[in-house]
Amino acid sequence: MKTRQILLAHGDGGKLTRSLIEQVFAKAFSNPELNKLEDSALLQINTDKIAFTTDSYTVKPIFFPESDIGKLAVYGTANDLAVMGARPLYLSCGFIIEEGLEMDVLEKIVLSMKESAQQLNIKLVTGDTKVVERGSVDKIFINTSGIGELLDWESMGRQIEPEDEILVSGTIGDHGIAILSARGELELEMPVKSDCAPVWELVNALYENKVKVKWMRDPTRGGLASALNELVEGASFGIELYENKIPITPPVDSACEILGLDPLYLANEGKIVCVVEKGEAERAREIMHAHKLGKDAEIIGKVIETPSQKVIMRTQIGGTRIIGMLAGRPLPRIC
Amino acid sequence: MKTRQILLAHGDGGKLTRSLIEQVFAKAFSNPELNKLEDSALLQINTDKIAFTTDSYTVKPIFFPESDIGKLAVYGTANDLAVMGARPLYLSCGFIIEEGLEMDVLEKIVLSMKESAQQLNIKLVTGDTKVVERGSVDKIFINTSGIGELLDWESMGRQIEPEDEILVSGTIGDHGIAILSARGELELEMPVKSDCAPVWELVNALYENKVKVKWMRDPTRGGLASALNELVEGASFGIELYENKIPITPPVDSACEILGLDPLYLANEGKIVCVVEKGEAERAREIMHAHKLGKDAEIIGKVIETPSQKVIMRTQIGGTRIIGMLAGRPLPRIC
Repeated sequence: MKTRQILLAHGDGGKLTRSLIEQVFAKAFSNPELNKLEDSALLQINTDKIAFTTDSYTVKPIFFPESDIGKLAVYGTANDLAVMGARPLYLSCGFIIEEGLEMDVLEKIVLSMKESAQQLNIKLVTGDTKVVERGSVDKIFINTSGIGELLDWESMGRQIEPEDEILVSGTIGDHGIAILSARGELELEMPVKSDCAPVWELVNALYENKVKVKWMRDPTRGGLASALNELVEGASFGIELYENKIPITPPVDSACEILGLDPLYLANEGKIVCVVEKGEAERAREIMHAHKLGKDAEIIGKVIETPSQKVIMRTQIGGTRIIGMLAGRPLPRIC
Repeated sequence: MKTRQILLAHGDGGKLTRSLIEQVFAKAFSNPELNKLEDSALLQINTDKIAFTTDSYTVKPIFFPESDIGKLAVYGTANDLAVMGARPLYLSCGFIIEEGLEMDVLEKIVLSMKESAQQLNIKLVTGDTKVVERGSVDKIFINTSGIGELLDWESMGRQIEPEDEILVSGTIGDHGIAILSARGELELEMPVKSDCAPVWELVNALYENKVKVKWMRDPTRGGLASALNELVEGASFGIELYENKIPITPPVDSACEILGLDPLYLANEGKIVCVVEKGEAERAREIMHAHKLGKDAEIIGKVIETPSQKVIMRTQIGGTRIIGMLAGRPLPRIC
């Protein structure tokens, strides 16, 4: 009998990741807060409602165009709180460092974390440092866990219905291509920068303008396709996407063409995708457009009744195709 | 000029760890909650007071007598909450897994975490899984972050004064020796089991009996000596320990003798050390004795006026020696 082993694809945010989470973790740890399998758990402590989330960052290389593992570790976790409708307040920070890492490198990462935290007005309040022997970890891995205060956002979590609309706050795939490019895995004429950024202000603008957002995610590992597939899994509705509306920059588009990658599955680190109530989409887009992170926001699709549990793409030539969960061809250490 | 590098000793819980935290992390991230450099940060969210903590577990080997990395990851973080006077409620869990790890091994660890969480009545509510290529991490590292509800324990944090007394809840050094032994670094006649256990019930017994505890820690990495040195650092008092009162099992004692290790610096994973108000020590010891984790509890010292900022040991032959912070001879991956 073949030994079952952990594969790289178990960590790519796609089909195998989902099955590992459902079959191993959620099965063992089962409780109402976890079982939702959202980006953050929503918890009640006495009278307060908080969101709680965790992410480990193993990105390779640790410095890449416009960003680095430290910035990613602060913004990535803060974004997981923001998209659950929570104001990011506090972060913990766990470093696992390889013996021999230059102190300058650590200091540069820490400075980047400091600046990112200040930008967001989030506090790093508790931490831990482990050092392991050479060869037992690749340079530095960082875990951040975050606590946010849940906004009183009535529409959030409301039943999603046909004709509700889907928006994305900007171009997709930038982070994924930036990392591949920084690894030297492709030579691009125009360098692609990571979109790593904090989405909180954008989320808060939607909240303060009382936009009826029902669901929101930051489409990181596994990309837009995986986030939307998770939404329709087991649901009584499906999603139709408009291929010609999905924002993508020319360099990302051409890199994807050359590499045979679908940008729908590439990681983003400064974008949100959301479902808004029917009739709210234009207003949501305008509000996003007024924000620098949302200037390329688009209405990219809508909720449909059938086929349920599927994400389908209406292509530019008028056909349709099914956009499934990511399966195969994992891109490890993208975040 | 010599390049400054991260050394194993930066992660051993002693002098270099402290200097890294103070010079790099606390300096950059400075804020009132972090600057206390306690085992957990104490936070106020609206009306609620919570404790928040994080720890990454890189212990090697991942299975060892009576315990494993999963159990350690649940109890270790819960203990950091408990000793700050907080009831452990929720944990996050971030796995970093090496490609090729047997699924059976992961499932065994997850089962152990599940059982440990049930034992403590703590919920694992949010998680993250990263898989990295072979050779980029050694099997599996786990981060857990925890949230606890702060008890209304009036004496906690009160000014420590001369004649206050120091207790430890049981024998010291068991975890450290168990790990070294499991690595095959020493051959023991009697196997030493890790003391890995949740201290919450013991802490809660002291709380419910209104024992005037002013300060409490779980002496993990760096051991009892490091925990007490952190307490006296910058303080107007010192600590005197009674060598003949410090509980230690014969196998740990003899292993230390053979290896030239001082048990005061070895990690414990199911013990507490606390300072209680003068006159409370006997009662505290009795309460601990009634609990299975506290059956070997002892009053091991007292707070003294001079020398301040020092931990001194009154030896069995009547002399004294200074017990400094751990410096040199790090034992990596002990937790």
